[in-house]
Amino acid sequence: MKGKIAIPRTTIERLPLYYRCLAKLDKMDIEVISSKELGERIGVPSTQVRKDLSYYGEFGRRGVGYEVKLLLKNLERILGLNNHWPIVLVGAGNLGRALVNYEGFRKLGLEIKAVLDTDLNKIGNSISGITVQSIKNLKEVVEKYNIKMGIIAVPAASAQQVADQLVSVGIKAIWNFAPTRIIVPEDVKVKNEDLSVGIIGLVYHLARNE
Amino acid sequence: MKGKIAIPRTTIERLPLYYRCLAKLDKMDIEVISSKELGERIGVPSTQVRKDLSYYGEFGRRGVGYEVKLLLKNLERILGLNNHWPIVLVGAGNLGRALVNYEGFRKLGLEIKAVLDTDLNKIGNSISGITVQSIKNLKEVVEKYNIKMGIIAVPAASAQQVADQLVSVGIKAIWNFAPTRIIVPEDVKVKNEDLSVGIIGLVYHLARNE
Repeated sequence: MKGKIAIPRTTIERLPLYYRCLAKLDKMDIEVISSKELGERIGVPSTQVRKDLSYYGEFGRRGVGYEVKLLLKNLERILGLNNHWPIVLVGAGNLGRALVNYEGFRKLGLEIKAVLDTDLNKIGNSISGITVQSIKNLKEVVEKYNIKMGIIAVPAASAQQVADQLVSVGIKAIWNFAPTRIIVPEDVKVKNEDLSVGIIGLVYHLARNE
Repeated sequence: MKGKIAIPRTTIERLPLYYRCLAKLDKMDIEVISSKELGERIGVPSTQVRKDLSYYGEFGRRGVGYEVKLLLKNLERILGLNNHWPIVLVGAGNLGRALVNYEGFRKLGLEIKAVLDTDLNKIGNSISGITVQSIKNLKEVVEKYNIKMGIIAVPAASAQQVADQLVSVGIKAIWNFAPTRIIVPEDVKVKNEDLSVGIIGLVYHLARNE
């Protein structure tokens, strides 16, 4: 691929869904899948599947479909999951502790390298072998481990301040668990993890089936 | 609306996104929005927005758009968020504790009424005023509070067993945070909260911008 092609945001947002779906299929030892089947699992038409993937190369074969292992490998590369990504986590509360122990990170090449907090009662504590440090050490740990990604797991009221600090030391991707929007420069990507979206779907199911 | 209309799964999955988007617009005091603008914010064409919402009624006005407050109120009703939903949470670890303290639930009408665990070291502890009980009390608390929704926040290895127990006492909606798939009868709805999807999008951004 030469230079930067403008790939639609919606296509990019579907890549993790393709990846997760293919990882599941691979686990089930399914070797080939058609764009129609893949689309049904993601919730888009087969034409959209072919269009989405065509931005990144020629992966499918007409009348055959996609080889699951091969497409999975390619998506891994496209998504950058074949690299190692060190992370700094700010907030050593319950959510922060839960994230450090989250089983799903390592297989994506992700590793929380440092946990920072402002609370003197938390600094010095150990979470699964990581010692909680003062937020004052932010610049130092980011440089030491060459960290580009930060996780915010602090209360809503301090989230923007933490985001500003992360941006100031060169963090380019922020995963924000605080239930509030944060404002960052254009070259920094924020993913707001809004847990309420997940549960709303369940409430809908209950409300419809009473 | 008469009887049950078969509404596409993808439409249903977009309802929380519409809801969240409209709640934001309302907070920003925006009174009217066109289907085009709304679609851009959700990532679907305007025709899809109109089609999605038409399953539930006639909310927009041609050439004007949707009244934000009115559509938000209607979505609240459609999604069942105008009711009160008691919840039982299984797993009093870090994630469970974080969920009890999650600020976003109450405004959706959701309330964690009971926290259960098998770990004798956790039973009897208090999390924000809720005393952790033995999983043996499951049937009792579910009947007492008329609970239809359960949250699984236990390690992957015990998730299926907990799911079976929840199903056996009449739970109809399960929010599963364990990084594994659980199998339930058809009339029970499961939402697997896979945190890795969120972070994959961030890794993609980093990988593309190096």
